Amino acid sequence: MTPVQDQDLVTPAALESRLRAIGAERYHHRHPFHQLMHEGKLTHGQLQAWALNRYYYQSAIPIKDAIILSRSENPAFRRAWRKRIIDHDGDGTDPGGIEKWIRLAQATGLDREQVTSKRGILPGVRYAVNAYFDLVSKRSFLEAVASSLTELFSRDLIALRVDRIREHYPWLSGGLAYFDARLTQAPEDATIALAWVTEHAGTRVEQDLVLGALRAKCDILWAQLDALYFAYVEPGWPPPGAFRPAAEDVTA
Amino acid sequence: MTPVQDQDLVTPAALESRLRAIGAERYHHRHPFHQLMHEGKLTHGQLQAWALNRYYYQSAIPIKDAIILSRSENPAFRRAWRKRIIDHDGDGTDPGGIEKWIRLAQATGLDREQVTSKRGILPGVRYAVNAYFDLVSKRSFLEAVASSLTELFSRDLIALRVDRIREHYPWLSGGLAYFDARLTQAPEDATIALAWVTEHAGTRVEQDLVLGALRAKCDILWAQLDALYFAYVEPGWPPPGAFRPAAEDVTA
Repeated sequence: MTPVQDQDLVTPAALESRLRAIGAERYHHRHPFHQLMHEGKLTHGQLQAWALNRYYYQSAIPIKDAIILSRSENPAFRRAWRKRIIDHDGDGTDPGGIEKWIRLAQATGLDREQVTSKRGILPGVRYAVNAYFDLVSKRSFLEAVASSLTELFSRDLIALRVDRIREHYPWLSGGLAYFDARLTQAPEDATIALAWVTEHAGTRVEQDLVLGALRAKCDILWAQLDALYFAYVEPGWPPPGAFRPAAEDVTA
Repeated sequence: MTPVQDQDLVTPAALESRLRAIGAERYHHRHPFHQLMHEGKLTHGQLQAWALNRYYYQSAIPIKDAIILSRSENPAFRRAWRKRIIDHDGDGTDPGGIEKWIRLAQATGLDREQVTSKRGILPGVRYAVNAYFDLVSKRSFLEAVASSLTELFSRDLIALRVDRIREHYPWLSGGLAYFDARLTQAPEDATIALAWVTEHAGTRVEQDLVLGALRAKCDILWAQLDALYFAYVEPGWPPPGAFRPAAEDVTA
């Protein structure tokens, strides 16, 4: 390996362009599970499995953001970042993202208790989410912040998904408040994170760490859908102990 | 939940019986990937993917055992447990399990450097193995030790595998030294761990922790094969960045 020199530092615009190229290749909008969803080809039971398993991810988000908060010694950074925790946990009156996700899961026919107990979550999903904890705990603070940059790509995916759910699964349309909120929250958060990362990645080595963190986060999202697809679509083998949809919900 | 009373403590024989029942249901000898392997139905490329990915697990074993060592304050326990590290790391002269696994991977046609670099490992395999580190680091010491009890079941699986590899994949027969060693090492290790767990699980609650730790470990092994099956058998979609066998190696 030849040492990378700081004169190789790319411009902010070039860094953003490289981040967006990673998203185009690796973000989970390309995953076959999402493609089936958007084509209206998922069964009721498969949508339940998706809502149940993604609850595990949703419930982890404020915890991972609290880990990031705990690693910052800068009050201004912490003030900006804490918005994320409020968005997901709510203020005790208006529901936050986790509560809205529970309502989405309920709209698929799952019981609240079944969802919040986290029983039946696929081990592959648990491990991927826990890898996100590892990333924000153990890698550099810069990488922890950069791992949030998948939010650069989420608005387009969410807009498409909301549209396609209303078209193909109208019975689920009442459960979409989570996505409505994220349409504005995610781009705001992404703008803040991108500006911070751009400012603080002052060497080419650090810029490469930023790119690597985004790739790692894309892997974490992708692996969750791999586990769902394997267990509930093809070949359709949920592992011992995992959620099993009611028999009538398996076929479209 | 009604509190569990210590008079519900099961006998050592009953505890072992319950452990063996978990193995019968959840150990990865039942996984379809292993079943294909033993029926001679895996392609050369699929065996490469298996050897490459399992290297990540093999290389993690002495690290997880060192974590367990680091949590024991008992020199007698540490003396007994350190044998595991020597078995896998070797003594610098005779090869240990990791070196033997590299040679197995080489027998499938992979380069040593490709294997030891850990490039191309499936994220799902990484996450599952890292969940093993979490288990032995963060759960109780009793659970950390109990998670090794899958070794109660490994001899039968290894004996079958060696037999079937010699039958169906004779070109791989020269790479089986790893398994030859494990045929005696694993049962010795399991006997020590089972005796220790039986002695130290002094309440029903602790016995249930032991059973839960074995289930969790079975999930970790199972999830690795789910990821392999999904990426390389059916539907056969390795995620971005993962190992891809040469085209001529994909079909049997």
